[in-house]
Amino acid sequence: MDVEPAPHMIAERYGLKSVPFAALAPNAVIETMLNHRSVRAYLPAPLPSGTLETLIAAAQSAPTSSNMQAWSVVAVEDAARRDRLAAFANNQDFVRQAPLLLCWIADLSRLDRLGRAHGRRLEGLDYLECFMVALADAAFAAQNTVVAAESLGLGTCYVGALRNRPDAVARELDLPPNAVAVFGLTVGRPDPAVPSAVKPRLPQTLVLHREAYRTEAADDIAHYDETLAAFSERAGMGRTAWAPRMLNRVGSGASLSGRDRMRAVLNALGFGLK
Amino acid sequence: MDVEPAPHMIAERYGLKSVPFAALAPNAVIETMLNHRSVRAYLPAPLPSGTLETLIAAAQSAPTSSNMQAWSVVAVEDAARRDRLAAFANNQDFVRQAPLLLCWIADLSRLDRLGRAHGRRLEGLDYLECFMVALADAAFAAQNTVVAAESLGLGTCYVGALRNRPDAVARELDLPPNAVAVFGLTVGRPDPAVPSAVKPRLPQTLVLHREAYRTEAADDIAHYDETLAAFSERAGMGRTAWAPRMLNRVGSGASLSGRDRMRAVLNALGFGLK
Repeated sequence: MDVEPAPHMIAERYGLKSVPFAALAPNAVIETMLNHRSVRAYLPAPLPSGTLETLIAAAQSAPTSSNMQAWSVVAVEDAARRDRLAAFANNQDFVRQAPLLLCWIADLSRLDRLGRAHGRRLEGLDYLECFMVALADAAFAAQNTVVAAESLGLGTCYVGALRNRPDAVARELDLPPNAVAVFGLTVGRPDPAVPSAVKPRLPQTLVLHREAYRTEAADDIAHYDETLAAFSERAGMGRTAWAPRMLNRVGSGASLSGRDRMRAVLNALGFGLK
Repeated sequence: MDVEPAPHMIAERYGLKSVPFAALAPNAVIETMLNHRSVRAYLPAPLPSGTLETLIAAAQSAPTSSNMQAWSVVAVEDAARRDRLAAFANNQDFVRQAPLLLCWIADLSRLDRLGRAHGRRLEGLDYLECFMVALADAAFAAQNTVVAAESLGLGTCYVGALRNRPDAVARELDLPPNAVAVFGLTVGRPDPAVPSAVKPRLPQTLVLHREAYRTEAADDIAHYDETLAAFSERAGMGRTAWAPRMLNRVGSGASLSGRDRMRAVLNALGFGLK
Protein backbone atom coordinates (compact mmCIF):
# COMPACT_ATOMS: atom_id res chain seq x y z
CA MET A 1 0.00 0.00 0.00
CA ASP A 2 1.20 3.46 -0.86
CA VAL A 3 2.07 5.62 2.15
CA GLU A 4 2.20 9.09 0.61
CA PRO A 5 -0.20 11.45 2.37
CA ALA A 6 -3.54 11.67 0.57
CA PRO A 7 -3.64 15.44 -0.16
CA HIS A 8 -0.54 15.06 -2.33
CA MET A 9 -2.08 12.01 -4.00
CA ILE A 10 -5.29 13.94 -4.74
CA ALA A 11 -3.26 16.76 -6.31
CA GLU A 12 -1.39 14.23 -8.46
CA ARG A 13 -4.69 12.75 -9.66
CA TYR A 14 -5.54 16.15 -11.14
CA GLY A 15 -2.00 16.94 -12.32
CA LEU A 16 -1.84 19.84 -9.85
CA LYS A 17 0.76 21.02 -7.33
CA SER A 18 -1.82 21.36 -4.55
CA VAL A 19 -5.44 20.40 -3.93
CA PRO A 20 -7.84 23.27 -4.70
CA PHE A 21 -10.61 22.00 -2.42
CA ALA A 22 -11.18 20.67 1.10
CA ALA A 23 -10.22 16.98 1.44
CA LEU A 24 -10.27 14.44 4.25
CA ALA A 25 -7.32 12.75 5.90
CA PRO A 26 -6.08 9.63 4.09
CA ASN A 27 -7.02 6.03 4.73
CA ALA A 28 -5.65 2.87 3.15
CA VAL A 29 -8.71 2.26 0.96
CA ILE A 30 -8.86 5.73 -0.59
CA GLU A 31 -5.06 5.80 -1.03
CA THR A 32 -5.30 2.57 -3.01
CA MET A 33 -7.82 4.21 -5.35
CA LEU A 34 -5.92 7.50 -5.72
CA ASN A 35 -2.83 5.49 -6.58
CA HIS A 36 -4.58 3.71 -9.49
CA ARG A 37 -2.73 3.49 -12.78
CA SER A 38 -3.28 1.32 -15.85
CA VAL A 39 -0.65 -1.42 -16.04
CA ARG A 40 0.22 -2.71 -19.51
CA ALA A 41 3.44 -4.61 -18.71
CA TYR A 42 3.37 -7.72 -16.54
CA LEU A 43 5.68 -10.37 -15.17
CA PRO A 44 4.58 -13.72 -16.61
CA ALA A 45 4.25 -15.62 -13.30
CA PRO A 46 0.77 -16.94 -12.53
CA LEU A 47 -1.02 -15.38 -9.56
CA PRO A 48 -0.69 -17.05 -6.14
CA SER A 49 -3.27 -19.72 -5.37
CA GLY A 50 -6.47 -18.24 -3.94
CA THR A 51 -5.97 -14.83 -5.57
CA LEU A 52 -8.61 -15.25 -8.27
CA GLU A 53 -11.19 -16.61 -5.84
CA THR A 54 -10.56 -13.72 -3.41
CA LEU A 55 -10.88 -11.16 -6.21
CA ILE A 56 -14.21 -12.65 -7.31
CA ALA A 57 -15.52 -12.72 -3.73
CA ALA A 58 -14.75 -8.98 -3.67
CA ALA A 59 -16.54 -8.61 -7.02
CA GLN A 60 -19.61 -10.45 -5.76
CA SER A 61 -19.66 -8.15 -2.73
CA ALA A 62 -20.44 -5.17 -4.97
CA PRO A 63 -24.06 -4.02 -5.12
CA THR A 64 -26.23 -5.46 -7.90
CA SER A 65 -29.56 -4.13 -9.15
CA SER A 66 -32.41 -5.83 -7.22
CA ASN A 67 -29.97 -8.66 -6.43
CA MET A 68 -30.34 -9.81 -10.06
CA GLN A 69 -26.59 -10.54 -10.26
CA ALA A 70 -26.86 -10.21 -14.02
CA TRP A 71 -23.17 -10.78 -14.67
CA SER A 72 -20.60 -13.53 -14.93
CA VAL A 73 -16.86 -13.59 -15.45
CA VAL A 74 -14.75 -15.97 -17.51
CA ALA A 75 -11.19 -16.29 -16.18
CA VAL A 76 -8.77 -17.08 -19.00
CA GLU A 77 -5.32 -18.35 -18.04
CA ASP A 78 -4.64 -20.67 -20.98
CA ALA A 79 -1.93 -19.03 -23.12
CA ALA A 80 -3.38 -20.11 -26.46
CA ARG A 81 -6.81 -18.75 -25.58
CA ARG A 82 -5.32 -15.47 -24.30
CA ASP A 83 -3.51 -15.25 -27.61
CA ARG A 84 -6.70 -15.72 -29.65
CA LEU A 85 -8.59 -13.19 -27.51
CA ALA A 86 -5.75 -10.67 -27.87
CA ALA A 87 -6.06 -11.07 -31.64
CA PHE A 88 -9.75 -10.09 -31.42
CA ALA A 89 -8.84 -7.12 -29.18
CA ASN A 90 -6.79 -5.05 -31.60
CA ASN A 91 -3.77 -7.31 -31.06
CA GLN A 92 -2.70 -5.54 -27.90
CA ASP A 93 0.42 -7.22 -26.53
CA PHE A 94 -0.39 -6.74 -22.85
CA VAL A 95 -3.51 -8.87 -23.29
CA ARG A 96 -1.25 -11.74 -24.39
CA GLN A 97 1.29 -11.08 -21.69
CA ALA A 98 -0.83 -10.85 -18.53
CA PRO A 99 -1.12 -14.21 -16.72
CA LEU A 100 -4.86 -13.68 -16.18
CA LEU A 101 -7.48 -12.18 -18.47
CA LEU A 102 -10.90 -11.70 -16.89
CA CYS A 103 -13.72 -11.43 -19.44
CA TRP A 104 -16.67 -9.64 -17.83
CA ILE A 105 -20.02 -10.83 -19.10
CA ALA A 106 -23.26 -8.85 -19.15
CA ASP A 107 -25.29 -11.95 -18.47
CA LEU A 108 -29.08 -12.12 -18.85
CA SER A 109 -28.81 -15.79 -19.79
CA ARG A 110 -28.90 -17.04 -16.17
CA LEU A 111 -32.24 -15.29 -15.58
CA ASP A 112 -33.48 -16.53 -18.95
CA ARG A 113 -32.62 -20.13 -17.95
CA LEU A 114 -34.26 -19.57 -14.55
CA GLY A 115 -37.47 -18.51 -16.26
CA ARG A 116 -37.42 -21.47 -18.63
CA ALA A 117 -36.82 -23.85 -15.71
CA HIS A 118 -40.09 -22.43 -14.32
CA GLY A 119 -41.83 -22.78 -17.68
CA ARG A 120 -41.75 -19.06 -18.44
CA ARG A 121 -40.22 -16.70 -20.98
CA LEU A 122 -39.13 -13.63 -18.95
CA GLU A 123 -40.09 -10.95 -21.43
CA GLY A 124 -38.65 -8.11 -19.33
CA LEU A 125 -35.20 -9.34 -20.36
CA ASP A 126 -35.88 -8.18 -23.92
CA TYR A 127 -35.69 -4.50 -22.96
CA LEU A 128 -32.72 -2.11 -23.14
CA GLU A 129 -33.25 -1.49 -19.40
CA CYS A 130 -32.22 -5.05 -18.55
CA PHE A 131 -29.12 -4.84 -20.73
CA MET A 132 -28.21 -1.63 -18.87
CA VAL A 133 -28.65 -3.45 -15.55
CA ALA A 134 -26.39 -6.27 -16.73
CA LEU A 135 -23.70 -3.86 -17.97
CA ALA A 136 -23.79 -1.78 -14.77
CA ASP A 137 -23.75 -4.91 -12.57
CA ALA A 138 -20.70 -6.20 -14.47
CA ALA A 139 -18.98 -2.81 -14.10
CA PHE A 140 -19.64 -2.55 -10.34
CA ALA A 141 -18.24 -6.06 -9.86
CA ALA A 142 -15.22 -5.49 -12.10
CA GLN A 143 -14.31 -2.22 -10.38
CA ASN A 144 -14.26 -3.94 -6.99
CA THR A 145 -11.84 -6.42 -8.56
CA VAL A 146 -9.60 -3.61 -9.83
CA VAL A 147 -9.33 -2.03 -6.39
CA ALA A 148 -8.96 -5.40 -4.62
CA ALA A 149 -6.19 -6.44 -7.03
CA GLU A 150 -4.32 -3.17 -6.55
CA SER A 151 -4.59 -3.58 -2.77
CA LEU A 152 -2.71 -6.88 -3.24
CA GLY A 153 0.07 -5.18 -5.21
CA LEU A 154 -1.21 -6.38 -8.57
CA GLY A 155 -1.73 -4.28 -11.68
CA THR A 156 -4.76 -4.23 -13.97
CA CYS A 157 -5.99 -2.74 -17.22
CA TYR A 158 -9.48 -2.82 -18.71
CA VAL A 159 -9.68 -4.08 -22.29
CA GLY A 160 -12.52 -2.26 -24.04
CA ALA A 161 -11.22 -3.63 -27.35
CA LEU A 162 -12.90 -6.93 -26.45
CA ARG A 163 -15.96 -5.10 -27.83
CA ASN A 164 -14.38 -4.83 -31.30
CA ARG A 165 -15.46 -8.43 -31.99
CA PRO A 166 -18.11 -9.43 -29.42
CA ASP A 167 -19.40 -12.23 -31.66
CA ALA A 168 -15.96 -13.84 -32.02
CA VAL A 169 -15.31 -13.47 -28.29
CA ALA A 170 -18.69 -15.07 -27.50
CA ARG A 171 -17.76 -18.08 -29.65
CA GLU A 172 -14.32 -18.38 -28.05
CA LEU A 173 -15.80 -18.35 -24.53
CA ASP A 174 -18.75 -20.57 -25.48
CA LEU A 175 -21.24 -17.98 -24.23
CA PRO A 176 -24.95 -18.88 -24.32
CA PRO A 177 -27.52 -16.50 -25.89
CA ASN A 178 -28.17 -13.31 -23.89
CA ALA A 179 -24.57 -13.09 -22.70
CA VAL A 180 -21.79 -10.84 -24.05
CA ALA A 181 -18.27 -9.89 -22.93
CA VAL A 182 -18.53 -6.13 -22.30
CA PHE A 183 -14.87 -5.61 -21.41
CA GLY A 184 -11.79 -7.53 -20.41
CA LEU A 185 -9.47 -6.95 -17.47
CA THR A 186 -5.86 -8.02 -17.40
CA VAL A 187 -4.42 -8.86 -13.97
CA GLY A 188 -0.83 -9.60 -13.02
CA ARG A 189 2.27 -8.54 -11.16
CA PRO A 190 3.47 -5.23 -12.73
CA ASP A 191 6.81 -5.43 -14.52
CA PRO A 192 9.02 -3.13 -12.40
CA ALA A 193 11.10 -2.33 -15.50
CA VAL A 194 8.12 -0.53 -17.05
CA PRO A 195 6.74 1.94 -14.48
CA SER A 196 3.25 3.34 -14.98
CA ALA A 197 2.01 6.78 -13.95
CA VAL A 198 -1.12 8.32 -12.46
CA LYS A 199 -3.05 9.92 -15.33
CA PRO A 200 -4.47 13.37 -14.58
CA ARG A 201 -8.26 13.69 -14.81
CA LEU A 202 -10.54 16.59 -15.65
CA PRO A 203 -10.80 19.25 -12.91
CA GLN A 204 -13.27 18.17 -10.26
CA THR A 205 -15.33 21.32 -10.91
CA LEU A 206 -16.19 19.97 -14.39
CA VAL A 207 -17.35 16.57 -13.20
CA LEU A 208 -18.98 17.33 -9.84
CA HIS A 209 -22.09 19.48 -10.10
CA ARG A 210 -23.98 20.91 -7.11
CA GLU A 211 -27.78 20.61 -7.16
CA ALA A 212 -27.94 21.01 -10.97
CA TYR A 213 -25.75 20.60 -14.05
CA ARG A 214 -23.56 23.49 -15.19
CA THR A 215 -21.80 23.39 -18.56
CA GLU A 216 -18.09 24.09 -18.40
CA ALA A 217 -16.24 27.13 -19.74
CA ALA A 218 -13.93 26.63 -22.74
CA ASP A 219 -11.01 27.79 -20.56
CA ASP A 220 -11.46 24.84 -18.20
CA ILE A 221 -10.93 22.38 -21.02
CA ALA A 222 -7.99 24.37 -22.41
CA HIS A 223 -6.23 24.09 -19.04
CA TYR A 224 -6.82 20.32 -18.91
CA ASP A 225 -5.56 20.00 -22.48
CA GLU A 226 -2.32 21.58 -21.33
CA THR A 227 -2.09 19.30 -18.27
CA LEU A 228 -2.65 16.17 -20.33
CA ALA A 229 -0.28 17.24 -23.11
CA ALA A 230 2.50 17.72 -20.53
CA PHE A 231 1.68 14.31 -18.99
CA SER A 232 1.77 12.59 -22.39
CA GLU A 233 5.10 14.18 -23.21
CA ARG A 234 6.62 13.04 -19.90
CA ALA A 235 5.29 9.52 -20.56
CA GLY A 236 7.03 9.47 -23.96
CA MET A 237 3.72 9.39 -25.89
CA GLY A 238 4.17 12.73 -27.63
CA ARG A 239 2.67 16.06 -26.69
CA THR A 240 -1.00 15.30 -27.44
CA ALA A 241 -3.78 17.12 -25.65
CA TRP A 242 -7.19 15.74 -24.63
CA ALA A 243 -9.37 17.46 -27.25
CA PRO A 244 -7.63 16.10 -30.36
CA ARG A 245 -7.58 12.59 -28.85
CA MET A 246 -11.32 12.75 -28.17
CA LEU A 247 -12.18 14.24 -31.59
CA ASN A 248 -10.30 11.36 -33.16
CA ARG A 249 -11.76 8.71 -30.86
CA VAL A 250 -15.46 9.45 -31.41
CA GLY A 251 -15.41 11.60 -34.53
CA SER A 252 -17.42 9.14 -36.62
CA GLY A 253 -18.92 5.67 -36.66
CA ALA A 254 -15.84 4.46 -38.53
CA SER A 255 -13.60 5.65 -35.68
CA LEU A 256 -15.22 3.16 -33.27
CA SER A 257 -13.05 0.19 -34.38
CA GLY A 258 -16.00 -1.88 -35.52
CA ARG A 259 -18.12 -1.08 -32.51
CA ASP A 260 -20.51 0.93 -34.67
CA ARG A 261 -22.10 -2.49 -35.32
CA MET A 262 -22.71 -3.07 -31.58
CA ARG A 263 -26.48 -2.94 -31.69
CA ALA A 264 -26.74 -5.46 -34.52
CA VAL A 265 -24.20 -7.76 -32.86
CA LEU A 266 -26.02 -7.62 -29.51
CA ASN A 267 -29.31 -8.39 -31.26
CA ALA A 268 -27.66 -11.38 -32.92
CA LEU A 269 -26.37 -12.56 -29.53
CA GLY A 270 -29.96 -12.62 -28.25
CA PHE A 271 -30.42 -9.21 -26.58
CA GLY A 272 -33.73 -7.58 -27.48
CA LEU A 273 -32.71 -4.01 -26.50
CA LYS A 274 -36.33 -2.96 -26.93
CA MET B 1 -12.93 -0.77 9.43
CA ASP B 2 -14.20 -4.27 10.19
CA VAL B 3 -11.66 -6.49 11.90
CA GLU B 4 -13.23 -9.93 11.47
CA PRO B 5 -10.85 -12.29 9.69
CA ALA B 6 -11.54 -12.41 5.94
CA PRO B 7 -12.25 -16.14 5.55
CA HIS B 8 -15.26 -15.79 7.85
CA MET B 9 -16.34 -12.68 5.96
CA ILE B 10 -16.09 -14.52 2.63
CA ALA B 11 -18.25 -17.34 4.01
CA GLU B 12 -20.82 -14.79 5.20
CA ARG B 13 -20.93 -13.20 1.73
CA TYR B 14 -22.14 -16.56 0.39
CA GLY B 15 -24.36 -17.37 3.39
CA LEU B 16 -22.12 -20.35 4.21
CA LYS B 17 -20.53 -21.66 7.40
CA SER B 18 -17.11 -22.00 5.80
CA VAL B 19 -15.39 -21.01 2.56
CA PRO B 20 -15.45 -23.81 -0.03
CA PHE B 21 -12.40 -22.53 -1.95
CA ALA B 22 -8.85 -21.29 -1.39
CA ALA B 23 -8.76 -17.63 -0.27
CA LEU B 24 -6.02 -15.15 0.60
CA ALA B 25 -5.32 -13.55 3.97
CA PRO B 26 -7.38 -10.42 4.63
CA ASN B 27 -6.41 -6.83 4.03
CA ALA B 28 -8.27 -3.65 4.93
CA VAL B 29 -9.41 -2.92 1.38
CA ILE B 30 -10.90 -6.34 0.68
CA GLU B 31 -12.47 -6.48 4.16
CA THR B 32 -14.24 -3.19 3.42
CA MET B 33 -15.72 -4.74 0.26
CA LEU B 34 -16.71 -8.04 1.87
CA ASN B 35 -18.45 -6.07 4.61
CA HIS B 36 -20.66 -4.19 2.11
CA ARG B 37 -24.35 -3.92 2.87
CA SER B 38 -27.06 -1.67 1.48
CA VAL B 39 -27.99 1.02 3.99
CA ARG B 40 -31.53 2.40 3.78
CA ALA B 41 -31.72 4.21 7.15
CA TYR B 42 -29.56 7.26 7.82
CA LEU B 43 -28.92 9.84 10.50
CA PRO B 44 -29.91 13.25 9.11
CA ALA B 45 -26.62 15.08 9.84
CA PRO B 46 -24.80 16.43 6.78
CA LEU B 47 -21.45 14.84 5.94
CA PRO B 48 -18.27 16.42 7.34
CA SER B 49 -16.68 19.11 5.17
CA GLY B 50 -14.37 17.64 2.54
CA THR B 51 -16.15 14.27 2.42
CA LEU B 52 -17.91 14.80 -0.91
CA GLU B 53 -14.77 16.14 -2.59
CA THR B 54 -12.72 13.19 -1.32
CA LEU B 55 -15.33 10.70 -2.55
CA ILE B 56 -15.33 12.28 -6.01
CA ALA B 57 -11.52 12.29 -6.17
CA ALA B 58 -11.78 8.53 -5.51
CA ALA B 59 -14.43 8.28 -8.24
CA GLN B 60 -12.27 10.14 -10.75
CA SER B 61 -9.41 7.76 -9.92
CA ALA B 62 -11.36 4.86 -11.42
CA PRO B 63 -10.41 3.78 -14.94
CA THR B 64 -12.37 5.32 -17.82
CA SER B 65 -12.58 4.08 -21.40
CA SER B 66 -9.84 5.79 -23.49
CA ASN B 67 -9.80 8.56 -20.84
CA MET B 68 -13.11 9.78 -22.28
CA GLN B 69 -14.42 10.44 -18.75
CA ALA B 70 -17.93 10.21 -20.16
CA TRP B 71 -19.66 10.74 -16.82
CA SER B 72 -20.63 13.46 -14.38
CA VAL B 73 -22.27 13.46 -10.99
CA VAL B 74 -24.83 15.85 -9.54
CA ALA B 75 -24.64 16.09 -5.73
CA VAL B 76 -28.04 16.90 -4.27
CA GLU B 77 -28.17 18.09 -0.66
CA ASP B 78 -31.13 20.48 -0.84
CA ALA B 79 -34.03 18.84 1.03
CA ALA B 80 -36.76 20.03 -1.32
CA ARG B 81 -34.88 18.70 -4.36
CA ARG B 82 -34.20 15.35 -2.63
CA ASP B 83 -37.90 15.19 -1.92
CA ARG B 84 -38.85 15.77 -5.56
CA LEU B 85 -36.30 13.22 -6.77
CA ALA B 86 -37.55 10.66 -4.23
CA ALA B 87 -41.04 11.15 -5.67
CA PHE B 88 -39.70 10.22 -9.14
CA ALA B 89 -37.92 7.19 -7.66
CA ASN B 90 -40.88 5.16 -6.49
CA ASN B 91 -41.26 7.36 -3.39
CA GLN B 92 -38.58 5.49 -1.47
CA ASP B 93 -38.19 7.08 1.96
CA PHE B 94 -34.46 6.50 2.30
CA VAL B 95 -33.88 8.71 -0.75
CA ARG B 96 -35.56 11.58 1.13
CA GLN B 97 -33.77 10.78 4.35
CA ALA B 98 -30.13 10.53 3.30
CA PRO B 99 -28.26 13.84 3.64
CA LEU B 100 -26.61 13.36 0.23
CA LEU B 101 -28.02 11.96 -3.01
CA LEU B 102 -25.49 11.51 -5.79
CA CYS B 103 -27.06 11.34 -9.25
CA TRP B 104 -24.66 9.57 -11.62
CA ILE B 105 -24.83 10.85 -15.17
CA ALA B 106 -23.94 8.93 -18.32
CA ASP B 107 -22.61 12.05 -19.97
CA LEU B 108 -21.82 12.29 -23.67
CA SER B 109 -22.73 15.98 -23.62
CA ARG B 110 -19.25 17.13 -22.59
CA LEU B 111 -17.70 15.44 -25.63
CA ASP B 112 -20.52 16.79 -27.79
CA ARG B 113 -19.76 20.34 -26.60
CA LEU B 114 -16.03 19.73 -27.13
CA GLY B 115 -16.70 18.77 -30.74
CA ARG B 116 -18.93 21.79 -31.35
CA ALA B 117 -16.28 24.08 -29.82
CA HIS B 118 -13.99 22.68 -32.55
CA GLY B 119 -16.66 23.15 -35.21
CA ARG B 120 -17.46 19.45 -35.46
CA ARG B 121 -20.39 17.14 -34.82
CA LEU B 122 -18.84 13.99 -33.26
CA GLU B 123 -20.96 11.38 -34.98
CA GLY B 124 -19.47 8.47 -33.05
CA LEU B 125 -21.46 9.66 -30.04
CA ASP B 126 -24.67 8.60 -31.80
CA TYR B 127 -23.88 4.89 -31.42
CA LEU B 128 -24.98 2.46 -28.71
CA GLU B 129 -21.27 1.75 -28.09
CA CYS B 130 -20.72 5.28 -26.76
CA PHE B 131 -23.74 5.06 -24.48
CA MET B 132 -22.29 1.79 -23.14
CA VAL B 133 -18.96 3.55 -22.50
CA ALA B 134 -20.73 6.35 -20.63
CA LEU B 135 -22.76 3.93 -18.52
CA ALA B 136 -19.73 1.77 -17.68
CA ASP B 137 -17.59 4.85 -16.88
CA ALA B 138 -20.30 6.13 -14.52
CA ALA B 139 -20.54 2.70 -12.86
CA PHE B 140 -16.76 2.37 -12.35
CA ALA B 141 -16.66 5.83 -10.78
CA ALA B 142 -19.72 5.26 -8.61
CA GLN B 143 -18.43 1.95 -7.31
CA ASN B 144 -15.18 3.58 -6.17
CA THR B 145 -17.35 6.05 -4.28
CA VAL B 146 -19.31 3.24 -2.62
CA VAL B 147 -16.14 1.57 -1.34
CA ALA B 148 -14.51 4.87 -0.36
CA ALA B 149 -17.63 5.93 1.56
CA GLU B 150 -17.79 2.61 3.40
CA SER B 151 -14.10 2.93 4.31
CA LEU B 152 -15.06 6.21 6.03
CA GLY B 153 -17.81 4.51 8.05
CA LEU B 154 -20.61 5.81 5.84
CA GLY B 155 -23.44 3.79 4.34
CA THR B 156 -24.71 3.86 0.76
CA CYS B 157 -27.46 2.48 -1.43
CA TYR B 158 -27.82 2.64 -5.21
CA VAL B 159 -31.15 4.00 -6.44
CA GLY B 160 -31.99 2.28 -9.72
CA ALA B 161 -35.51 3.70 -9.47
CA LEU B 162 -34.09 7.01 -10.70
CA ARG B 163 -34.51 5.27 -14.09
CA ASN B 164 -38.30 5.06 -13.64
CA ARG B 165 -38.58 8.70 -14.78
CA PRO B 166 -35.29 9.67 -16.51
CA ASP B 167 -36.98 12.56 -18.35
CA ALA B 168 -38.34 14.12 -15.14
CA VAL B 169 -34.98 13.63 -13.39
CA ALA B 170 -33.17 15.28 -16.34
CA ARG B 171 -35.44 18.33 -16.04
CA GLU B 172 -34.97 18.52 -12.27
CA LEU B 173 -31.16 18.42 -12.62
CA ASP B 174 -31.13 20.73 -15.66
CA LEU B 175 -29.23 18.14 -17.71
CA PRO B 176 -28.18 19.11 -21.24
CA PRO B 177 -28.94 16.82 -24.23
CA ASN B 178 -26.87 13.60 -24.32
CA ALA B 179 -26.85 13.26 -20.54
CA VAL B 180 -29.03 11.01 -18.36
CA ALA B 181 -29.04 9.97 -14.70
CA VAL B 182 -28.43 6.21 -14.84
CA PHE B 183 -28.69 5.59 -11.09
CA GLY B 184 -28.63 7.45 -7.80
CA LEU B 185 -26.55 6.74 -4.71
CA THR B 186 -27.59 7.77 -1.21
CA VAL B 187 -24.73 8.48 1.21
CA GLY B 188 -24.91 9.12 4.94
CA ARG B 189 -24.11 7.95 8.41
CA PRO B 190 -26.03 4.68 9.00
CA ASP B 191 -28.74 4.87 11.65
CA PRO B 192 -27.43 2.49 14.35
CA ALA B 193 -31.02 1.72 15.36
CA VAL B 194 -31.63 0.00 12.00
CA PRO B 195 -28.81 -2.48 11.42
CA SER B 196 -28.26 -3.83 7.91
CA ALA B 197 -26.94 -7.25 6.96
CA VAL B 198 -24.60 -8.78 4.39
CA LYS B 199 -26.78 -10.27 1.63
CA PRO B 200 -25.69 -13.71 0.43
CA ARG B 201 -24.76 -13.97 -3.26
CA LEU B 202 -24.93 -16.81 -5.77
CA PRO B 203 -22.30 -19.52 -5.24
CA GLN B 204 -18.99 -18.49 -6.79
CA THR B 205 -19.06 -21.56 -9.00
CA LEU B 206 -22.08 -20.12 -10.85
CA VAL B 207 -20.53 -16.73 -11.50
CA LEU B 208 -16.85 -17.54 -12.05
CA HIS B 209 -16.17 -19.63 -15.16
CA ARG B 210 -12.78 -21.09 -16.08
CA GLU B 211 -11.69 -20.71 -19.70
CA ALA B 212 -15.25 -21.02 -21.02
CA TYR B 213 -18.85 -20.59 -19.87
CA ARG B 214 -20.66 -23.49 -18.20
CA THR B 215 -24.40 -23.33 -17.55
CA GLU B 216 -25.41 -24.10 -13.97
CA ALA B 217 -27.29 -27.13 -12.69
CA ALA B 218 -30.84 -26.61 -11.38
CA ASP B 219 -29.67 -27.88 -7.98
CA ASP B 220 -27.24 -24.99 -7.63
CA ILE B 221 -30.04 -22.45 -7.90
CA ALA B 222 -32.29 -24.43 -5.57
CA HIS B 223 -29.63 -24.30 -2.87
CA TYR B 224 -29.23 -20.53 -3.30
CA ASP B 225 -33.02 -20.13 -3.17
CA GLU B 226 -32.92 -21.79 0.22
CA THR B 227 -30.04 -19.58 1.44
CA LEU B 228 -31.79 -16.39 0.35
CA ALA B 229 -35.17 -17.43 1.75
CA ALA B 230 -33.57 -18.02 5.15
CA PHE B 231 -31.79 -14.65 4.92
CA SER B 232 -35.02 -12.84 4.03
CA GLU B 233 -36.86 -14.47 6.89
CA ARG B 234 -34.13 -13.44 9.38
CA ALA B 235 -34.31 -9.88 8.00
CA GLY B 236 -38.06 -9.78 8.61
CA MET B 237 -38.90 -9.59 4.89
CA GLY B 238 -40.77 -12.90 4.72
CA ARG B 239 -39.46 -16.24 3.47
CA THR B 240 -39.05 -15.39 -0.22
CA ALA B 241 -36.50 -17.21 -2.36
CA TRP B 242 -34.49 -15.81 -5.27
CA ALA B 243 -36.34 -17.43 -8.18
CA PRO B 244 -39.82 -16.02 -7.44
CA ARG B 245 -38.34 -12.56 -6.85
CA MET B 246 -36.57 -12.66 -10.20
CA LEU B 247 -39.56 -14.05 -12.09
CA ASN B 248 -41.59 -11.18 -10.70
CA ARG B 249 -38.91 -8.55 -11.33
CA VAL B 250 -38.31 -9.21 -15.05
CA GLY B 251 -41.34 -11.27 -15.99
CA SER B 252 -42.69 -8.74 -18.48
CA GLY B 253 -42.19 -5.23 -19.84
CA ALA B 254 -44.90 -4.04 -17.45
CA SER B 255 -42.88 -5.35 -14.47
CA LEU B 256 -40.06 -2.87 -15.23
CA SER B 257 -41.72 0.09 -13.42
CA GLY B 258 -41.87 2.22 -16.53
CA ARG B 259 -38.36 1.39 -17.66
CA ASP B 260 -39.74 -0.52 -20.64
CA ARG B 261 -39.80 2.94 -22.26
CA MET B 262 -36.05 3.43 -21.70
CA ARG B 263 -35.01 3.39 -25.33
CA ALA B 264 -37.59 5.99 -26.38
CA VAL B 265 -36.73 8.19 -23.39
CA LEU B 266 -33.00 8.00 -24.12
CA ASN B 267 -33.65 8.86 -27.76
CA ALA B 268 -35.68 11.87 -26.62
CA LEU B 269 -32.81 12.95 -24.34
CA GLY B 270 -30.50 13.02 -27.35
CA PHE B 271 -28.82 9.59 -27.37
CA GLY B 272 -28.71 8.04 -30.84
CA LEU B 273 -28.16 4.43 -29.65
CA LYS B 274 -27.47 3.43 -33.27
